[in-house]
Amino acid sequence: MKNLKLHIRYDGTAYHGWQRQENAYTVQQALEEALYKLTGKQTAVTGCSRTDAGVHARQYVCNFFTESSIPIDRFPLALNAHLPNDIAAFFCEQAAMDFHARFSAKSKKYSYCVLNASFRDPLYRNTAWHYPIKLSVEKMQKATEYFIGRQDFSAFMAAGAQQKETVKEIYSLTVNKNEQLIFIDIHANSYLYNMVRIIAGTLVYVGNGKLCQEEMPNIIASRDRTLAGITAPPQGLSLIEVIY
Amino acid sequence: MKNLKLHIRYDGTAYHGWQRQENAYTVQQALEEALYKLTGKQTAVTGCSRTDAGVHARQYVCNFFTESSIPIDRFPLALNAHLPNDIAAFFCEQAAMDFHARFSAKSKKYSYCVLNASFRDPLYRNTAWHYPIKLSVEKMQKATEYFIGRQDFSAFMAAGAQQKETVKEIYSLTVNKNEQLIFIDIHANSYLYNMVRIIAGTLVYVGNGKLCQEEMPNIIASRDRTLAGITAPPQGLSLIEVIY
Repeated sequence: MKNLKLHIRYDGTAYHGWQRQENAYTVQQALEEALYKLTGKQTAVTGCSRTDAGVHARQYVCNFFTESSIPIDRFPLALNAHLPNDIAAFFCEQAAMDFHARFSAKSKKYSYCVLNASFRDPLYRNTAWHYPIKLSVEKMQKATEYFIGRQDFSAFMAAGAQQKETVKEIYSLTVNKNEQLIFIDIHANSYLYNMVRIIAGTLVYVGNGKLCQEEMPNIIASRDRTLAGITAPPQGLSLIEVIY
Repeated sequence: MKNLKLHIRYDGTAYHGWQRQENAYTVQQALEEALYKLTGKQTAVTGCSRTDAGVHARQYVCNFFTESSIPIDRFPLALNAHLPNDIAAFFCEQAAMDFHARFSAKSKKYSYCVLNASFRDPLYRNTAWHYPIKLSVEKMQKATEYFIGRQDFSAFMAAGAQQKETVKEIYSLTVNKNEQLIFIDIHANSYLYNMVRIIAGTLVYVGNGKLCQEEMPNIIASRDRTLAGITAPPQGLSLIEVIY
């Protein structure tokens, strides 16, 4: 029995997120089905995070236990033959028996993409939030400073979410523009439910003047979800890297 | 009656190309249906080129005659409300009555994208040709020189295509690599059927060593389709710009 750590990439447009569900197709289910076809054994896969419906991953890490004799470096190509074309494996390695894709993670990087253009763009319809009102990138950049560090981010947790540990550490939060695309990149030790999307929505509200960057410390200190900006839509969000 | 010149962008994945067909959904049909919903009149649209099924356009130009009183600069947003989300208009202007999107075009730019990576990438599945064998970009770049200028490009026309004027002028042809993506960019006065895809397939054959760059003059001079490389698949191709 081996514990394999697998790196995959997916376009989440067609999936109801990572986590297996009763009546909806998910990335976890697609992967477990492909593993079953490949190895002939029912295999449960543990993921590094529960991405929402429509969210993408450039590097998603998961692990599973197998007795398969397929050489480890052959796993990605062999799995890809059974995976739908919007999911692909690209790296596999043997991990310690106690490696857990979620609990062993030290930190994760996400990127949120905003298309700030008057007209919607068909080429970014599934990978960016189309925001037609001109945003001030400079104001958004100034607002990011207040988020850095170890703080209680309850104000940026989806209403109704049940997470006891609401103190998280944000190592970096940056805003960069490339033509009409604005990228919000974040690196934190862990995240509350919808935290990146609410931070993205809050920064967009700073960019359009609905919120002022100086209000950020009060919003954070309030731990009140209603004071932060809206939850940015899922399609702009991508998991970029998981660090162990 | 006005002749309007409209700029649109589309993801061609779901369409059987531009041109209206009996039993397949096309970009032209989608656009004519949207115009009908907007103006209440059946309106025929003339396109700048007949893109193949699966081919994309960043700037596609078309024209149509209308008596609509909608202000010209409002047309794009008004049309977008009726267009599917993989097609969007972004610019509209009044043209001379004899302007014809296809016949008035002086030249066109296309870009072909190759994903040169061991593993397929879900994020590029509809916009690049996944080619897993390592390609020499340097050899591909050297091969491009032979294509420049006014020549008979019959060797790069789809077998069976009926085009009388097979002499075309290529102004530029470049190959550039950005991480795992190779971009083949071409600018010519006009194109034979499948010409860009056959040139892309031929350059890829040079990159993998199946063809030698010094063979290019002979292949061009032969006017023999069987001597050139394969026809690269449609999803890597995008129309970038039409010049009038």
